[in-house]
Parts: sequence; C-alpha cells; structure tokens
Amino acid sequence: MKKTVLLIEDDPLILMDVEAALIDEGFEIITAENGTLAIEAFEADASRIDAVVTDIRLGTGPSGWDIGHRVREAVPSMPLVYMTGDSSHEWEAHGVPFSVMVSKPFVHAQIITALATLMNNPDQT
Amino acid sequence: MKKTVLLIEDDPLILMDVEAALIDEGFEIITAENGTLAIEAFEADASRIDAVVTDIRLGTGPSGWDIGHRVREAVPSMPLVYMTGDSSHEWEAHGVPFSVMVSKPFVHAQIITALATLMNNPDQT
Amino acid sequence: MKKTVLLIEDDPLILMDVEAALIDEGFEIITAENGTLAIEAFEADASRIDAVVTDIRLGTGPSGWDIGHRVREAVPSMPLVYMTGDSSHEWEAHGVPFSVMVSKPFVHAQIITALATLMNNPDQT
Amino acid sequence: MKKTVLLIEDDPLILMDVEAALIDEGFEIITAENGTLAIEAFEADASRIDAVVTDIRLGTGPSGWDIGHRVREAVPSMPLVYMTGDSSHEWEAHGVPFSVMVSKPFVHAQIITALATLMNNPDQT
Amino acid sequence: MKKTVLLIEDDPLILMDVEAALIDEGFEIITAENGTLAIEAFEADASRIDAVVTDIRLGTGPSGWDIGHRVREAVPSMPLVYMTGDSSHEWEAHGVPFSVMVSKPFVHAQIITALATLMNNPDQT
Amino acid sequence: MKKTVLLIEDDPLILMDVEAALIDEGFEIITAENGTLAIEAFEADASRIDAVVTDIRLGTGPSGWDIGHRVREAVPSMPLVYMTGDSSHEWEAHGVPFSVMVSKPFVHAQIITALATLMNNPDQT
Repeated sequence: MKKTVLLIEDDPLILMDVEAALIDEGFEIITAENGTLAIEAFEADASRIDAVVTDIRLGTGPSGWDIGHRVREAVPSMPLVYMTGDSSHEWEAHGVPFSVMVSKPFVHAQIITALATLMNNPDQT
Repeated sequence: MKKTVLLIEDDPLILMDVEAALIDEGFEIITAENGTLAIEAFEADASRIDAVVTDIRLGTGPSGWDIGHRVREAVPSMPLVYMTGDSSHEWEAHGVPFSVMVSKPFVHAQIITALATLMNNPDQT
Repeated sequence: MKKTVLLIEDDPLILMDVEAALIDEGFEIITAENGTLAIEAFEADASRIDAVVTDIRLGTGPSGWDIGHRVREAVPSMPLVYMTGDSSHEWEAHGVPFSVMVSKPFVHAQIITALATLMNNPDQT
Repeated sequence: MKKTVLLIEDDPLILMDVEAALIDEGFEIITAENGTLAIEAFEADASRIDAVVTDIRLGTGPSGWDIGHRVREAVPSMPLVYMTGDSSHEWEAHGVPFSVMVSKPFVHAQIITALATLMNNPDQT
Repeated sequence: MKKTVLLIEDDPLILMDVEAALIDEGFEIITAENGTLAIEAFEADASRIDAVVTDIRLGTGPSGWDIGHRVREAVPSMPLVYMTGDSSHEWEAHGVPFSVMVSKPFVHAQIITALATLMNNPDQT
Repeated sequence: MKKTVLLIEDDPLILMDVEAALIDEGFEIITAENGTLAIEAFEADASRIDAVVTDIRLGTGPSGWDIGHRVREAVPSMPLVYMTGDSSHEWEAHGVPFSVMVSKPFVHAQIITALATLMNNPDQT
C-alpha cells in the first residue's frame, strides 16, 4: 500500500543516510550496493517498484547511467533520480529524459522533492 | 496568517491522515466529506481558501472533477490537487489546467510538494 | 501519411482562413461548423485525427469546452488548441490539462506553434 | 559538506523562523538583516553559497531585487527565492529568470520546495 | 484586429530584416531605433502593444534590459523577447521572468516561435 | 553568420525534403546519410554546428541514439531533435534530457518549432 523506491549506492554511509530519510517520509525501500544487484532486484519485481534513486559510479558492473537505460526500457515512465559527486556534467549526455540529477552533497529535501515531483508527473520533469 | 487548504475526502481514515500531515506542515485545514459540503464550505468563505485538495469519487453529489470546475470559475488561479485510487486516467479529460493528480497510495510528500509548487507558481504547473 | 487536424469554427471566414493556413503548413484538415458535427466527425474516424483546434462558442449543441472533454475521454493524449475571442478567462475552469488557449485576434503562427509543440510533446505542455 | 543558504530578512522574527526551518532540513545558513550586509556576506565568500533566499523590502540600502541582480551577475545559475508580503506584483518586472516568488504568509514547505527544485535544476524553473 | 509588436533595434539592417519577417507572419509592427524612442512609443499607446522584441545594446539612453523592466512595470504579463550578439550571458541577471533570449545570429523562426509561445502562455515560459 | 544544423537521415527522399524545409527557414545544413559519416562530420567541425536533427535507425554503424550520446559528450547543451517512424517508444530509455522526439509522419513545422525552442532555451525543454 506504499510507494516503493529502489535505492542504489555503493557507499554504505550514504546508503543508510538516504534510506533512513526516505523511510521517514513513508517510502518502502529496496536497496542495492552495486549495479548487478540493482538490475537483479529490479527484474525480480519490477511491478512493485515505483521509482529508482541511483548513484552513478558503482564500481564494476553497470553504472547508474546503465541502470537508467535498463529500467526505462522496461518501464518508460519510471521516475528516476541520479545522485552523484563528480559525474553531474555527464547527465546531458547519459541521463534519460524526465530524470533529475542531484549533486552531492545534497540535503534530503532535494531527493524527496525530486521523487515527489516525478511521481506526480510521471511523463514530465 | 497561515495558508488554508480545503480538503475533501469521503474516506474518514484518509481524511484524518492527510489532515494531520498538512497540519504538521503548518497549514490550516477546512474539511468536507462530500461534494455538497465542499461547495458550501468554499462558497461560505472563498477568499480565505488558498488551495483545494480533493478526492474524485465522493458518493452522491458533486465529484472532485465538478469541484475543480466550480472553484476555478470563482478563482481562476486556485491551486488544485486531485487524489484518486482509480480515476487518474480521467485527469486529461476532466482535470483543469495547472492542477496536479496524485495517485493513491501516495506518501504525504507528494501532496505537500504539489501544494507548495502550485502555491509558488499560481498560474503554472 | 500526413498529420490530420479536426478544425471546428462556426464563423466561416475564420474557418477558411485558419484552414488555408494549416493546409499551407502541410496538415490535412477535417472541418466542422458546430459541436454536433464535430463530435460526429471525431467519432467517425478518431484514429485518423492527430489534433483538435476548436472555437469555444459554437451556437446550439456542444461548446468547445464540451468537445475538449469528449475527445480527451476517447484519446487522453490528444493535442488540443482552443481559439476564442471572449471566453479565454474560462480556460482555467473548463479547459483540459496540456491544452493551449489562443486569444483572438491571433496570427497563424500562434496556432501552428501550439500544434507543433503539443504534437512534439503529447503528454506535456 | 552541506548546502549553504544566504538568508536575508529584516524582520528578526521571520528571520529566526525561516532560519530554524532551514537548519532543520540540513541546510547551513548565513544570515543578513539588510541589503548592505547581504552583499558583503555574498562577496566575502560567494563560492560557498549555494542559494539565496531574500525578503524584498529591506529598509535603506539594496532591496531584494537589487540583491538578485547582484548575485546573478556573479553566479548566473544561482538559485534565488524571493519572500514578500506586498511586492509580489513587482516580480514580473524586477525578478530574475528562473527565480521563485513566495508570498507571505507562507508555510515552510514552500521555501524548501522552491530551494530543492531550483538546486536540482539550476538553469530551469 | 492584429497582434502588434514593438520592435527595438539600433542596427537598421537588422531592424528592417526582422520587421519584414514579422510583417510576413501577419504582425503589425511599431519600430524604435533607441531606448528613449522605444519608451515614448510604448507610453504613447501601451494598450495597443501585444509584445516587445528588443535588442540589448542601444547606444545612449535606456538599454534593452531597462526597457524590459519598464514595460513589465506597466504590463506584468507582457511577452518579451531579447535579441543580442554579446549580452546573452547577462540575461540571468538582468532579464525578467518568462522572457526569451535569442542569440544573434538567429533564424527568423526563433523570434516567431518565441513570440507565439509567449503570446499563447502570457504568464509562463 | 547563420545557424547550422547537422541533419542525419538514411532515406534520401526524407533527407532532401527536410533539408529543403530547413534551408527555406534560413538554416545552413550539413547532411550525413549514416551514423559513421555523421560522427565524422560532427568531429570535423563541432564548433560550427548549432543543432543536430537525426533519424534513429541508420543501418550499420551508430544509431541516432548513439549520435545523441556522442554529441552531448562533446557539447552538453547541444539542441537535439530525433525523427523516427517506429522507435519513438524508446525515447524515454535512450534519448537524452532536453531533446525532442518527432514521430513520422510529421509536418515541417514540428521540426522547425522543436529547433527554435531548443535554440532559444539551450538547457531546458
């Protein structure tokens, strides 16, 4: 009965921090620490996922850009938020339409506002 | 001295839940449990109301779509948020311009972000 | 192989003027001089129609606002442009989301830009 | 490691209220009580400031409109939120592009949503 | 019965070129070759003017930025298009909200699309 | 002194048709009939190119999606218009932010409006 967010981040401190903030807002969270696990989690239960929040640089395996392409192939209107410290300049080239790029460091309100705006307007920024 | 929201919902549990969330954000709330009472409350004191949040299916009497048309006739720039479980596919046909449709189930942040965005930009989405 | 516009206007001079301008841009045009004929033309071949341009006050029968609701019930993403001399203040109450209101008098470029923008972005303004 | 907001307001009660709300959201705050002090604070450390929130009428010295022009000359993409009780009708003439006008009285969510939206989209509203 | 544009440009070749393009689209044109004459023309008959297109650097007297502030003080929703060769980087600091900046060299379609979009949406970009 | 568009299309009839329409609007055109030639043309003189209009399916070699990623890596704010008959459903997954998808068949005004809008607002849709 809630909105479920797939949250992907390889830094465990940031993962825990963002997870706690989203739980506080009433979201259910599925976490993944790298791109391979993220794709597995998504494909295991895509219909349950309402939005994806992903870091860009995730070590070996798919990057956040790759994850964005994959989830939008499956669900073209999926709300998608990227978080990054040093890859924000690549968003215009590798991000997908109607996504939001949040630059680290960020306040939680940036992630929450991005998610709420995209969920309210699934086909528009 | 506060912003006042007219909140219309015939399910008392959802009404109480959303009312509490909006009070928590500092809004003053006027509630109505059906469309007839909503129109009465609006017409009794339209100048006091800063935004309208309404369910769509409200039993007998005016629906949320009807309420939207009525309040915009009186106040063309009135911020307007619809909440619905099963009528979101009707928004493109029966919603008004510069309104937001929030699909149930939702997190409170979706209603609050919609209200804040519309209040900050009364004539734009 | 072309884009087809359903054009509804009860003033024959304006109808001919806008029709000629749209043909000049490469559109195919189906015309209707009142709301009843417009609904008939739409229902006879909705899948062929790519956009609707309609006057608001159309004498007896459905108004432009009524036509907007009807075509969006059938095709939620239908591009929709309203033209009006004296009803533009009603658009916030009776227009549909992601539509464009063009106030008379207008230059042809206003209609053409509105159509092109809506066709390029069927679910956004 | 946080986002820093320059907050300018000559009414100490409103200043303290908004400051507390922004600190609660995780922002770092630099405050100024008039336009001259605001410009000094901005020029002392512009690279540290991530957004500006300013009242319009600030007594003698630069107004909020003047501050907007000054910070955008230095940083064209600076997120900028104006708060005002009686000058909102001047925004179309004296505000800058991609800024947000919040009318008093407001709820905190309006300021926070405006800041988050502008920070997420530095070159768009 | 037409839409009238106040066109301000101190380079006579560009003035004639843009004037001819706008006349070709059905606009009526009032021209001014510097800022002082532009303000005079605007104040002589503001109610007749539907949009303003202005160069930025206009020699002595008011600049295009000054003209933008002045016409928006009189008519907050006035559609406004700036044309410039070397001042486009100043738009975020000195332009007004809901205006369009067109960089020289431009094709006529850029001015016409900007005007049509702003006229169709007087309070939004 | 003009705006230059790189136009990529493997169907020679469509290529000639769109090229003629864009020349008619005052654009200079560089054409390429497949993705390999397009990348070569872009890299030979990227600073001269003001916008890219590309078909999606281009036979062997890079697709229109690949071209979009490549030109945005070099120039993040490059205006980009995709034309396609059967790949428009892939845009949400493989298009880049602030691009426009035009579905075939189209009228020329759709391409021209998309180009003009993107050139006027290089970092926004």
